[in-house]
Order: sequence, then C-alpha cells, then structure tokens
Amino acid sequence: MARRSSRDLDRAATSPLRPEARAAMEPFLSDRYGNPSSAHALGRDAVRAVDEARERLADLLGCAPDEVVLTSGGTESDAHAVTGGVPVRSGRVVCSAVEHPAVLGSVRAIGGSTVAVDATGRVDLDALADELRGTEDDRAVELVSVMAANNEVGAVNDLHAMADVVAAHAPLAALHTDAVQAAPWLDLARIAAPAGLVSVSAHKFGGPKGVGALVVRRGVAIRPLLHGGGQEWDRRSGTTNVAGVVGMAAALDAVARDRAATSERVRALRDRLAAGLCAIDGVTWTAAARGPAGRPEVDHLLPGTLHLLIDDVDSEPLLFLLDRAGVRASASSACASGAARPSHVLAALPGVTLDDRRRGALRLSLGHDATAAQADHALSVVTEAVAHLRAASPTAAGTAAGGR
Amino acid sequence: MARRSSRDLDRAATSPLRPEARAAMEPFLSDRYGNPSSAHALGRDAVRAVDEARERLADLLGCAPDEVVLTSGGTESDAHAVTGGVPVRSGRVVCSAVEHPAVLGSVRAIGGSTVAVDATGRVDLDALADELRGTEDDRAVELVSVMAANNEVGAVNDLHAMADVVAAHAPLAALHTDAVQAAPWLDLARIAAPAGLVSVSAHKFGGPKGVGALVVRRGVAIRPLLHGGGQEWDRRSGTTNVAGVVGMAAALDAVARDRAATSERVRALRDRLAAGLCAIDGVTWTAAARGPAGRPEVDHLLPGTLHLLIDDVDSEPLLFLLDRAGVRASASSACASGAARPSHVLAALPGVTLDDRRRGALRLSLGHDATAAQADHALSVVTEAVAHLRAASPTAAGTAAGGR
Repeated sequence: MARRSSRDLDRAATSPLRPEARAAMEPFLSDRYGNPSSAHALGRDAVRAVDEARERLADLLGCAPDEVVLTSGGTESDAHAVTGGVPVRSGRVVCSAVEHPAVLGSVRAIGGSTVAVDATGRVDLDALADELRGTEDDRAVELVSVMAANNEVGAVNDLHAMADVVAAHAPLAALHTDAVQAAPWLDLARIAAPAGLVSVSAHKFGGPKGVGALVVRRGVAIRPLLHGGGQEWDRRSGTTNVAGVVGMAAALDAVARDRAATSERVRALRDRLAAGLCAIDGVTWTAAARGPAGRPEVDHLLPGTLHLLIDDVDSEPLLFLLDRAGVRASASSACASGAARPSHVLAALPGVTLDDRRRGALRLSLGHDATAAQADHALSVVTEAVAHLRAASPTAAGTAAGGR
Repeated sequence: MARRSSRDLDRAATSPLRPEARAAMEPFLSDRYGNPSSAHALGRDAVRAVDEARERLADLLGCAPDEVVLTSGGTESDAHAVTGGVPVRSGRVVCSAVEHPAVLGSVRAIGGSTVAVDATGRVDLDALADELRGTEDDRAVELVSVMAANNEVGAVNDLHAMADVVAAHAPLAALHTDAVQAAPWLDLARIAAPAGLVSVSAHKFGGPKGVGALVVRRGVAIRPLLHGGGQEWDRRSGTTNVAGVVGMAAALDAVARDRAATSERVRALRDRLAAGLCAIDGVTWTAAARGPAGRPEVDHLLPGTLHLLIDDVDSEPLLFLLDRAGVRASASSACASGAARPSHVLAALPGVTLDDRRRGALRLSLGHDATAAQADHALSVVTEAVAHLRAASPTAAGTAAGGR
C-alpha cells in the first residue's frame, strides 16, 4: 500500500500514529471510557491505565512517575514551564533566540530576554553566561529555557554544559528544555537529565495529537497553569486524556526499542540525500559546521533533519512543486507554515547573512520509517524542481554559476 | 451486549464516545494524520477537516466559526476565560460560589470573589448585583463567570437574567459561562447566547477526552493563555488535535439531532428513579424547589441529574455497595472524587444545614441512552444499599423514623 506517509519528508511537523500507539488507545476509545477521577470501577480501570502509562513514560524520560505532569502537548508544557503557572513568575526568564514560538512567545509575554546561538545553531555558552549575570538592577533569573534540539535546523544543545553555566551564574534558576523535537531521536533520560523541566509532545514521536508531558523534577517550584479538579497532584487540572496518554506511552516505548539502530539508519539516508542535494550548485546545509576539507560536519544535528538554503530559488514555488510531486516538506517549521513568514531561527544564525535569507529555505525531515526509495525520490524531485525554477528565473543564470 | 455503560449512572463525570464521534475520528488516527499548520497536501487535508468541524461546532454553539477557540477541554477553556490569558487580568473577577473548581481555582488564583446561590442552586441575582457594584475602592469588574448548569446538583442558571445584571452593574465586564454540564442537554446557541465566553468539553457529551472549546465572541478581549505557533487566530497556540476536534463536532451534532426527545425521555426516567428513592424515609432531592403541596419542583435541574441527601448513611460505604452491585455513581463531582472531600456546592446551598452535610450525598447522572431497566436496577440497588447500611448502623433506627 502506498501510504500517505511514504513521501512525507515533513515528519518534524507531525507523524502518523505508530501501530503500537493506535492499538494501545483502542480500548480507551471504546468500553474503557472511565474518568480516572471517578472512584468507582470504571474510574479505577482508567487510573490503572494512566498509572501504567505514567510509569512507562517516567522510565523513558528518566524521572519518577510523580514527576511526570500530563499535558495537552508541547505548547502547554512550554507555557507552563516558562510562565511558572498562574500567577506568572516575577523573576527574570531567559531563553535562546532560536526557541520554538511556544517558548519564545511565553518568554516575551512575561518580559523575558533571549540569548544568541552560534553558526551551528547551538546556544553560545558565553552569551548565556553574560545574560545570566545581567546587571545589578536586574531581577534574579528564575528560569532558563534552552531547547534540546531545534525544530528548523535540527541543532542539538549540550544540556549538561547549559546546566553548568546556569549553576555557575544563576544558581537559583530552573533549567527548562523543550525536548519536543529531540524526543523522536534522542534518549531524554540521558541528555535531558540536567534539566529540571522537560517538555515533550506525543504527536512528534508517533503518539496522538493533543497530549504531551512536562517533567517537573522534585524541588522545582511551579504553580498550576490550569487550576481546578486537582489532577496530576494538583499541578495540572483537567480530566486526564486517558486514550491519549496511553498512546503517548506506547509510542515513546516504540521509539526507545530501536532508537540506536533507527538513528543510524536514518542518519545514513539523510546524509545520502544531503550529499546529492549539496552537490547542486548553490545549495548549502544550514547550521552545518565546517570540517577540515570544507566538508560539512553534522554530528550535532538530529539524524532526520536536513535544512538547506538554495540560491536563486524561492521557498514558496519550490514547496509547491515538491507538493505537486508528492513530496511533503516545509520551509521552516509547521507553525510558521507556508514560506511567507521569515524564520526567526535563520535570522538568529550568525553565519546566515541577509543575502542568505533571500535564498530558498527547505527543511526535509525524515521519520523513523524512512526508506532509501523515499530519499532517492526526494532527491530527484528536489533536484528537478530547483533546476526548473532556476531555468524559469531571469536572474538565475548569472548567480547560480557562482556556487556556494 | 451488556456494555459497561449500561449501569453507569455517573455520566456527568464522563461519557462513552458516541459511535458517530468514533467513526468521524477514525481516518485522523490513521492515514489523514497531517498537521493543519503544514502548507502541503497532508496539512491542507487536515485544515479542511478542522474547518468543517469548526463550522459545525459554531453552528451548534451559536457563534461564528472564528469565534470558536479549540482547546484541550473544559478546564483549559475555563482557565483561559477567567484569567484572560498570560499575563492575567488586572481587573476584578467575580464568579458564583458553586462553580466548577476549574473556574473557582482560577478565580482564586487571581484574587477574585464569589457570589451566593439560592436554595435551588442558582445564582442569587441580588447578591450578584451587590458584588458587581462593590465599593468605591474596588477595581472595575472585568469578568463575571456563572456556570450554565451545576455539575453536582444540576441547577441551570438563566444566563439572560445574569447578563442583564452584569449590563446594569458592570457594563464593561465580559460574561463567561462554563457550559460543560449543560452541553449534553441544552441548546447552547439559545441559552448561552448572552455570554461573551462559553466553555465546553467534548467528553461530557460523547466526544473524546482532551478536547474542548471556548467561544470568544467578537469584541471580547482575551490574550492567549498558550502562546506560540499562532493557531486559532493567535488565540490558542499548539498543534490542533484534529481527531479530537472532528470527534467533538460529530458528538455535539449527534446530541443536537435528538435533543428535545432525549431530554424528555431521560427526564421521565430520572423522575421515576427520584420518586422511588425519595419515597425512602429521610431521602431528599438536593436543590429541588418546594412546590405547593410540598412536592419537589425540578424544572430548573438538568434532565439527567439527581442529587440526593440521605439520612443516616455515609456516602463512602454507599458508593462502595453501589459499585459492587455494578452501579457507578458519585458523591459529588468526579473532580472531588471519592466521598472524602466536602462539597463546596453543598456548603454554598443556603437550604443545606451543617446537619444535612453529615447526611450521605449521592449524585446519580443519567446519559442520553438511559433506559428504564437501568433506572429500575439503580432504584433497587440504592434502596437495598441504604436499608443495609441503616440496619448496620447503631444510630440509624432512632433518626430515620423522623423522616424528611
């Protein structure tokens, strides 16, 4: 069967339900419909299901079950962590300049500030230290939010190094990480261990939309964002989305089962696709580091992500041609969908010039089930589309020859 | 088939998915997994589904499609409406004393106040007017929150009358109504029309858990509670829960199709159950008005709700016996589950004395699919359980004879 997902190279935007997640959810969309807040048999049955899912999630996220706060997704998790709940934090909040809008928007809403990244898309540790030290008049820093992996270019931050800087310059601050994009690929129990607050979203790793989690480690102070019935040990009220939570746990479990092999396999496919596309004149791999022979070094990028800047091509017509050929891709993130909105991530990358930002941006993101056929098909479709657009463009001939 | 739901008289806590909702969700848990924020074919497919669901919901809720803000459920809708988003409201917030904890908790978190209800469980209009007038030193009232129907006793407020009082005494305030319990029974397009903000939760009316809506009528000012990707016209960020939203619309559509006939049928079954139970010595119907011949008048209560206070019986063992006999019920709401927590609703009812609050509380709530067999079975189980507990209690014989 030619599944719709087989030519979907926009898996950083969302992912199909893993069969394991779908199967696990099934009974809770049917007879096992109880509300875990009910004390009777139907409720107790739901409690058992949620408890089991929570224990599995805790294990996979590297925390205790009562440190998992079940939420409606990454955006809620981020908002809760950043704002500190209702009423919101009174201290200072600092985040990286390339955070997902869910973090950036919350940080801005409560008057926080941002920290620069380097050319590889990772937070600049010196800039972070400077910002945390602040001036004498500044309020104390209450929270530092640094994403585990960037959603547009795939750059993975070293959270252990971040935590050291935070401990040195803002010892009372909590470290939050938006691990939404990292979760499908990296072992959060290991890489996110230094963060007191960790956000994940199920639909990015084969779970359902509308459910996520916020790890709140013991000792990290946070008020509820949603007050009410007292669910989640009074940290997040609202009837538990039983089917969603069960599906999320089953999906993350499936991710973990073959994480290493999947990462290796997908990384190889991504690199093959990258090699083919970067061989086209005027195509560069965004946020790649420069190796000795000028070769891109990309060990710091997520295995499935390939963000390109392409001379003499606009993102919008490129994505249109790709879509028409069945290749789903994006210019940046799904949130800033279409190609019309400029990317705050590209704007924050020091190596990306104003001229670069006029180049076509293309994010290809592979899923855990990526195949060689998919990568090869994408290579040929993108190659052809770029050639077609350049041939149609009056200015292309002159500049494309310059290469990059 | 003896479905689990067939002896479930706790349908105010949650409800099984309506078959229509389940069927509508199916494709979006499978091949149609796109993120509506993606610009490509998978995304556009999701946009179409969400748009259709939103239009149907808007029609059923009596608003324009762009006045529907899709949320993760009743608690988020309530928190968003009450707090006004992030940062939170600076003006005064007033709600009824019997609101759901999702409203009460948010109101308390931002320093709001409550207004008394009368013996029938409905908001006292004079008390509301007094509170809105306030003192000279008070900040202006920004929001008044009055539930459409109470979750414990089922009392339905006249929102048109509330809106008149608000218009007279706090003309700049928005009126919010938590219509979570009303939605399975009442036509919100009619009864909630005077409210500028209306909260609903899908799982209370046969939709999935983890999805709801907040109607925000044009002209009502509200900031996002969840900042980020800019979904819902920048009023609620976060990847849209496509399957959930589609299920919610299908469920509310199913509710609306046979609303009048269902209400009439369930009301008759509830009244028959009530007559049988109130014939037991020392059993009274909470929040019922007193008619001419001392008969309870219950036109102001939701068709499916029957809240009783029972002499010489504790809620906890009563619910235990009911559960053992397969009858699912609760003492108050699912949020204050079990029987241990005292009900703030009972505490707020002027007719309910301290002595009354020592009586056993029992909420039986019927679903749209209630049957005579279900009601008759519940009647016999409750009757037997009350008799059993009274026979086992040393104090019962003396006081039960007094009747009520």
